[in-house]
Amino acid sequence: MTPRKARPTPDQFAAGIREGNRVLLGQAITLVESTLPADQELAHALLERLLPYTGNAIRMGITGVPGVGKSTFIETLGKHITNQGKTLAVLTIDPSSRLTGGSILGDKTRMEELSRNPHAFIRPTAAGDALGGVAHRTREAMLLCEAAGYDVIIVETVGVGQSEISVRNMVDFFLLLMLAGAGDELQGIKKGIMEMADALVITKADGENKKAAQEARGAYTQALHLVASPLANEWTVPVLTASALTGDGFDETWATVERYCDHTRASGFFQATRSRQNINWFNDYFQLLLQADLQASVQALRSSLEQAVARQELSSHEAALRLLQAYRDHHRTL
Amino acid sequence: MTPRKARPTPDQFAAGIREGNRVLLGQAITLVESTLPADQELAHALLERLLPYTGNAIRMGITGVPGVGKSTFIETLGKHITNQGKTLAVLTIDPSSRLTGGSILGDKTRMEELSRNPHAFIRPTAAGDALGGVAHRTREAMLLCEAAGYDVIIVETVGVGQSEISVRNMVDFFLLLMLAGAGDELQGIKKGIMEMADALVITKADGENKKAAQEARGAYTQALHLVASPLANEWTVPVLTASALTGDGFDETWATVERYCDHTRASGFFQATRSRQNINWFNDYFQLLLQADLQASVQALRSSLEQAVARQELSSHEAALRLLQAYRDHHRTL
Repeated sequence: MTPRKARPTPDQFAAGIREGNRVLLGQAITLVESTLPADQELAHALLERLLPYTGNAIRMGITGVPGVGKSTFIETLGKHITNQGKTLAVLTIDPSSRLTGGSILGDKTRMEELSRNPHAFIRPTAAGDALGGVAHRTREAMLLCEAAGYDVIIVETVGVGQSEISVRNMVDFFLLLMLAGAGDELQGIKKGIMEMADALVITKADGENKKAAQEARGAYTQALHLVASPLANEWTVPVLTASALTGDGFDETWATVERYCDHTRASGFFQATRSRQNINWFNDYFQLLLQADLQASVQALRSSLEQAVARQELSSHEAALRLLQAYRDHHRTL
Repeated sequence: MTPRKARPTPDQFAAGIREGNRVLLGQAITLVESTLPADQELAHALLERLLPYTGNAIRMGITGVPGVGKSTFIETLGKHITNQGKTLAVLTIDPSSRLTGGSILGDKTRMEELSRNPHAFIRPTAAGDALGGVAHRTREAMLLCEAAGYDVIIVETVGVGQSEISVRNMVDFFLLLMLAGAGDELQGIKKGIMEMADALVITKADGENKKAAQEARGAYTQALHLVASPLANEWTVPVLTASALTGDGFDETWATVERYCDHTRASGFFQATRSRQNINWFNDYFQLLLQADLQASVQALRSSLEQAVARQELSSHEAALRLLQAYRDHHRTL
């Protein structure tokens, strides 16, 4: 038997991550994703130590329906970013996949070139089963990457559901990828998602598709005039076109991100948004913990009250009062 | 000085409401709407007593954007219902109005004829300022009306926001009123609202507008084929036309409501939905009480933790842990 390797202490972990040790960074993200209490504890001890070194990256969210070419887009944009001497971490959320021993089968190969780039770090996150948990895990992975010194963090998600709102709430800049020649309905993009975007990019703007992409650019520019963005004050949401095939549009895309950050930093909106995001994460986290605490303490009573309420033997108000009282009593008598 | 009239006891109140005393019913709804603790306590004592006598009405929600003719539609439908020997209570939610000493100025006159009908009871509910509270107040007013013996309860709301979901969750049948010749966007109807409807009625189908209403009926019927209704199993959402001017379509509208209730009662869906709704109201109520309890016990700490998190002095996870601990300790040391 080989002796079991001792786990690094939080201090060793933190030091290693700050020195750019990618293996330790990967392990730390696995800890963040773990549901084991010991792993969770170590993960949070680590995050506390690294917190002072977070917040220095540009945080970018990218979304779009399957088929829009997200991976190819990110691969090309990533090359553009690292060519400018910046380091990049890409965190992808795939709601349809599940963790298989800490990694997602087949996923890492989606961005082949970028995954071999020494200035880039790519990490898929499975959405898994945990309700609400995936957003927190992704955000914590993002903080770990920031502490590791990455200049740009891209969080990729699929533009079809709840995860967009979570990602919008963890990034500075939210980019929506669209296809030309398809109505919103066909693209499955929910109305609210377009309203969250700081910029739109029409992908695959090459060859026979180039003209349609230009037309779509005009149409979406018009449409966005009707949708005021209450978040990004004094920012006109631009619509760009890009082609991973020709490389066109990536210069402009990245310039837009930098222009947005400059603009919102100057107005104070950038920092105000981050502060607001931090507060939201705290409140979300608290609700998660509170619901777990309820689950652990009064779940049996809750279930029986639900049955009584369903059978109309008890009013929902009276049942709610009894449940709150039981929860309070539970802690009183501990 | 005249001596102050003693308030009826919960038992006197309950007996009076069950005997059909409309003044007491109105006062009870005012108690339900009150934010004074003593009023709330009396309201809930009353609701507990009346609970066994609730649940016997057909609960109907009606929504549509301003201008669609909701009041006129309800007035005409109401006349149709009372002509059949049924009694009707109409509860209207107006998100833009506020309570002025228990009544909404000018509102009662909107359904002039119905308000003079001895078989109908009309009561506006102001949405007011209380977050989340209005839905509970409306639902409790509905229960009071049921205990008073009304055969049909109509809850009217404006089809532009969050209140539709609350109303959908308190009624058996949800009716969406639409105008002909206006796209969804122009009507301000959110996509999700159409998917919640058990039937659509195109209003003002008379005179020059009749042809457009027929066309709209066809178009919406087509559109609804694409939107499967996961709630109403084996129910094809019908699209009707109606005119309050000619009286056309109200027979068919009411027949549709009755057919829906017969159909879902036979399948068990009707009662299953009500049970599910009761459970949801219980859980909603519990969350309201829990948040109020948090507010009363650890609000100061919560605010200071929010500040620390905003300044990035504390991770949102650590702050959440501390807040939960403080909340638990608060009850432990009471």
